[in-house]
Amino acid sequence: MAEIGIVGLGRMGANIARRLMRAGHRCVVWDKDPAAIAAVVAHGATGAADLAGVVAGLAAPRAVWVMLPHGPPTEKAIAALGDLLSPGDVAIDGGNTQWKDDVRRAKALKAKGVHYLDIGTSGGVWGLERGYCLMIGGEAAPVARLAPIFAALAPGRGSIPATPRREGRAPNVEEGWLHCGGHGAGHLVKMIHNGIEYGMMQALAEGLDLLRHADSPQMPEEHRISVDVADVAEVWRRGSVVTSWLLDLTAAALAEDPDLDKYSGRVGDSGEGRWTVQQAIETAVSAPVLTAALFSRFASRDEGHFSGKALSAMRAGFGGHLEPKA
Amino acid sequence: MAEIGIVGLGRMGANIARRLMRAGHRCVVWDKDPAAIAAVVAHGATGAADLAGVVAGLAAPRAVWVMLPHGPPTEKAIAALGDLLSPGDVAIDGGNTQWKDDVRRAKALKAKGVHYLDIGTSGGVWGLERGYCLMIGGEAAPVARLAPIFAALAPGRGSIPATPRREGRAPNVEEGWLHCGGHGAGHLVKMIHNGIEYGMMQALAEGLDLLRHADSPQMPEEHRISVDVADVAEVWRRGSVVTSWLLDLTAAALAEDPDLDKYSGRVGDSGEGRWTVQQAIETAVSAPVLTAALFSRFASRDEGHFSGKALSAMRAGFGGHLEPKA
Amino acid sequence: MAEIGIVGLGRMGANIARRLMRAGHRCVVWDKDPAAIAAVVAHGATGAADLAGVVAGLAAPRAVWVMLPHGPPTEKAIAALGDLLSPGDVAIDGGNTQWKDDVRRAKALKAKGVHYLDIGTSGGVWGLERGYCLMIGGEAAPVARLAPIFAALAPGRGSIPATPRREGRAPNVEEGWLHCGGHGAGHLVKMIHNGIEYGMMQALAEGLDLLRHADSPQMPEEHRISVDVADVAEVWRRGSVVTSWLLDLTAAALAEDPDLDKYSGRVGDSGEGRWTVQQAIETAVSAPVLTAALFSRFASRDEGHFSGKALSAMRAGFGGHLEPKA
Amino acid sequence: MAEIGIVGLGRMGANIARRLMRAGHRCVVWDKDPAAIAAVVAHGATGAADLAGVVAGLAAPRAVWVMLPHGPPTEKAIAALGDLLSPGDVAIDGGNTQWKDDVRRAKALKAKGVHYLDIGTSGGVWGLERGYCLMIGGEAAPVARLAPIFAALAPGRGSIPATPRREGRAPNVEEGWLHCGGHGAGHLVKMIHNGIEYGMMQALAEGLDLLRHADSPQMPEEHRISVDVADVAEVWRRGSVVTSWLLDLTAAALAEDPDLDKYSGRVGDSGEGRWTVQQAIETAVSAPVLTAALFSRFASRDEGHFSGKALSAMRAGFGGHLEPKA
Repeated sequence: MAEIGIVGLGRMGANIARRLMRAGHRCVVWDKDPAAIAAVVAHGATGAADLAGVVAGLAAPRAVWVMLPHGPPTEKAIAALGDLLSPGDVAIDGGNTQWKDDVRRAKALKAKGVHYLDIGTSGGVWGLERGYCLMIGGEAAPVARLAPIFAALAPGRGSIPATPRREGRAPNVEEGWLHCGGHGAGHLVKMIHNGIEYGMMQALAEGLDLLRHADSPQMPEEHRISVDVADVAEVWRRGSVVTSWLLDLTAAALAEDPDLDKYSGRVGDSGEGRWTVQQAIETAVSAPVLTAALFSRFASRDEGHFSGKALSAMRAGFGGHLEPKA
Repeated sequence: MAEIGIVGLGRMGANIARRLMRAGHRCVVWDKDPAAIAAVVAHGATGAADLAGVVAGLAAPRAVWVMLPHGPPTEKAIAALGDLLSPGDVAIDGGNTQWKDDVRRAKALKAKGVHYLDIGTSGGVWGLERGYCLMIGGEAAPVARLAPIFAALAPGRGSIPATPRREGRAPNVEEGWLHCGGHGAGHLVKMIHNGIEYGMMQALAEGLDLLRHADSPQMPEEHRISVDVADVAEVWRRGSVVTSWLLDLTAAALAEDPDLDKYSGRVGDSGEGRWTVQQAIETAVSAPVLTAALFSRFASRDEGHFSGKALSAMRAGFGGHLEPKA
Repeated sequence: MAEIGIVGLGRMGANIARRLMRAGHRCVVWDKDPAAIAAVVAHGATGAADLAGVVAGLAAPRAVWVMLPHGPPTEKAIAALGDLLSPGDVAIDGGNTQWKDDVRRAKALKAKGVHYLDIGTSGGVWGLERGYCLMIGGEAAPVARLAPIFAALAPGRGSIPATPRREGRAPNVEEGWLHCGGHGAGHLVKMIHNGIEYGMMQALAEGLDLLRHADSPQMPEEHRISVDVADVAEVWRRGSVVTSWLLDLTAAALAEDPDLDKYSGRVGDSGEGRWTVQQAIETAVSAPVLTAALFSRFASRDEGHFSGKALSAMRAGFGGHLEPKA
Repeated sequence: MAEIGIVGLGRMGANIARRLMRAGHRCVVWDKDPAAIAAVVAHGATGAADLAGVVAGLAAPRAVWVMLPHGPPTEKAIAALGDLLSPGDVAIDGGNTQWKDDVRRAKALKAKGVHYLDIGTSGGVWGLERGYCLMIGGEAAPVARLAPIFAALAPGRGSIPATPRREGRAPNVEEGWLHCGGHGAGHLVKMIHNGIEYGMMQALAEGLDLLRHADSPQMPEEHRISVDVADVAEVWRRGSVVTSWLLDLTAAALAEDPDLDKYSGRVGDSGEGRWTVQQAIETAVSAPVLTAALFSRFASRDEGHFSGKALSAMRAGFGGHLEPKA
């Protein structure tokens, strides 16, 4: 059995520790909130008083997994680990970092002999039970050394049918973890995964919106069709082409609340959708769907509506279309 | 001098009659609103009591220009003219009709020996002074016969520099009226004109929106830039690449009301933007900008926000991102 | 056990017949190609000499499932069945018909006392083994009568986890078949399903394209990342948010041929993606992702590149950017 | 009369020098290409042997306008000027620099007492005759001091009708030059101008593409319409809503070569379109049209077509749609 330090015990970090301990691994954990530490200690973890305590609680060669919000919190923790860890140890960023930051950090840590892995971790609140899809960037040696950790976190083959013709390829890929490439590759692959996620979600959302409006008064009466959106989402779960985990979640949400009345319609975004579009721009790849998905979220939160006002002003200018405030 | 019947004396119809009479032509006019008739009669027109009166007031071969809202009003008037007019006469639809309707109507009228012209008429409330850009579909003979009418309505060459290498092409094009092709071609060209208009308007609106948000708190403080949008629109009117009539109108609106506070941000659409996208679909032409412009208007009026709610529900499902109603 | 007629024995129709016969139902089949009939007869079907033979081979109240290419072939077969069937019989269109055509046809058949069902049938070449997701429009009585047929064609619950809180809802939905609503509702739901499919496919395709170009020479050297796209698709199949049947198919294609060299990059479209966008336009629903997906296919087949040429001409006009033919 | 140094004598720099000299100003010029210097000296400029020579040839307080390709060439020239200039002098970047670079540079120069202005300069190859639209960022004092230079470069009021209700606003705006705000504001406004330009160009290009395909064999025969695109562009120049300089250029290109056969359809992009989309992402502004315009250019140059291949592979996977290479 292996051991690892976990820094940051929010929903993701705490569940990662628990899933590892279920598999028999030892976790030394820390969070700025003592209650969060206590909760994971209750499941068998060793609590530490601070980052230094996490490092002190592990035998060399150590591995410390940082699972904090991206930006300053992660940046500071990785920098501190650079000072605390010894040559041969591994610092891991399992959060949602911009992959270019990984390239920079890995270089700085390498100067100290410390390895760095960037791991895109997908699975959300379901990961404890379902397992985490792991996309790993960095050098081969620390990845190989930590294979038991990754195997415990990943979902495994499960009941999912094997893809034909994968003979000769690394078997761990089919278990749900992949060494994607050098530094940054893990978070790059995770970033693009999230970009695709935005696009798929928006595709589903637009389709549901069309279903909701199929009885629109803009249609002639004989062409108004009323549909139970919750039942449609459910039926698509079996045998259709759009079968997907996102559809499963959608069907569950609609079964509980067919009008989704508890949501405002304003949708947040968490960084990786934006970075994906920036990647498209920097590599000159046309990505209209991923971008439309991001912009739809921006538009859902638009409070000033200045572009709409500008359109109305032009319409008034040339055609006398008056669209004053209601 | 020529004579013509004008049916429908809204802003467009009345101004068309006035511009023709200024050029010395005779107009026999009718509208369901007697006050509208009286207003144009005050400018020199001959009023009629009904459609039959318009026809009776003209000498053969007659021309009657219908300037009514598209759909049933225009449809009925053209059908009625088909019964009232004589072989060799011309029925004109100067409104915003779907061009496929022109193809159908022209065929029906041809069976009676009556000519049909579909004329896309651009110029809006400014046409009386600025002239109308005329896009004409139909047979060559009635177009040739009505050239003096078209010449009077069109803006003429004005002070706009001539395009080089147009030698050998019809000079009337440079005066602002074009026989675009057979039945439907006039309204097809006008439809696409309006599609382009949507795209250009949206391009300007998005740019202004970016300027408005250049001091966004999402930017680090040193990268927040505050700009006077009204002055920017004005300076672009001289020497820039985006010089355009739509920019002129925008600059005027912003000079009067830099925040455009009298508008709600909800923007209407008038049919031709939709038909343009349908044309793209039917002819398999990729038209992402024209379509994005249309959808931005749809989204500006979206009241249910069901697609946004569906996105929030999925986010809650996989990641515990909670986006309840504020 | 029930019996049904099947008209059209292409890949879909033949497999539908076979799946029904495996479940013990009796099929009377016809196709214009005698070899196609023979192939299904070999699996136990009763062959007919023509459409009248299909009808004659069934006991009242009959049901005949038409599975032909949309447009004239289906139109003719349904019209012929209208003459051949008796009051109380059911004509079914299981193909990809525009749902407005269903509304029209159902009205015509109703005048003859013949029922009409429009059934969107998803499952493609995999349906024989995996089952078909059925989206059904029409009156309740014939749907109820044919429930055993639908149950045999649908995938059933399989190993897919149940959606919570569906108590009190029709159980057949969870088996993969749904009575969506009145005439046209089945094909409407199938149409929107396909629209979503276009959007999800394009989201995946754009993400893969970004991965392929992550080592673009447009990036500074330290930011070029090389990724094995086949392995990435495989790892996402377990535990990620983008888990989906389309991803399964993609992973299989990439495992076989990582460069997908056997494809040209030109992508066809089959009608329902277009109709979905038309539905968006008619009901004023913003659907940027579904539309971008469609336009990407159009653009992939664009041979004239006229819009690109027009852009180059403008660039040459204002800036002397010369982009002549290579 | 004023004097100024001009560094970089490409098309833009040389014409700027000539336009200033026509207005009576004195220019001290340098370029790495002696022939470029000689050509401007022939129009009355004073040539310098190097950057130091430019500075030496001007009396304090000096102003030096750098007109070089963005990136390293401009970066180096500005840095060198920082060493050569004296407190109170002004370094100007009139090129297409990312505005965040201006913020950084201005700070560095300020430490040396040197002013910095970022000037977006629109007008292209036409600027010599038509004048340049100038968008200026930086401190007020150097802007005020250089007003005569800006007035000479700008187009002036020309024959363009005044915008009503601009009383009390700076009159130079209507002459074509604007002090937009602090450091970076000039290039920010120019960047967004170019973003709008991309959108407007694409709107026109899509419209022309629709016209070209209006006789598509995909349409039923009675709905195929053949249109002379060159004539349509010309007629729209008078009285239509899409009247614009870009339309003027388009009409000229089409009059010369209606099929635009000398262009390949592959369209380049020059940085500012990309930066505009990045600005949209950073400030969370939905800019679908500006982005679609950029992506259309990317797609026009796509050589691998990997996303299209991925779509075809999925289609083959679920439906047996075979789209092998032609």
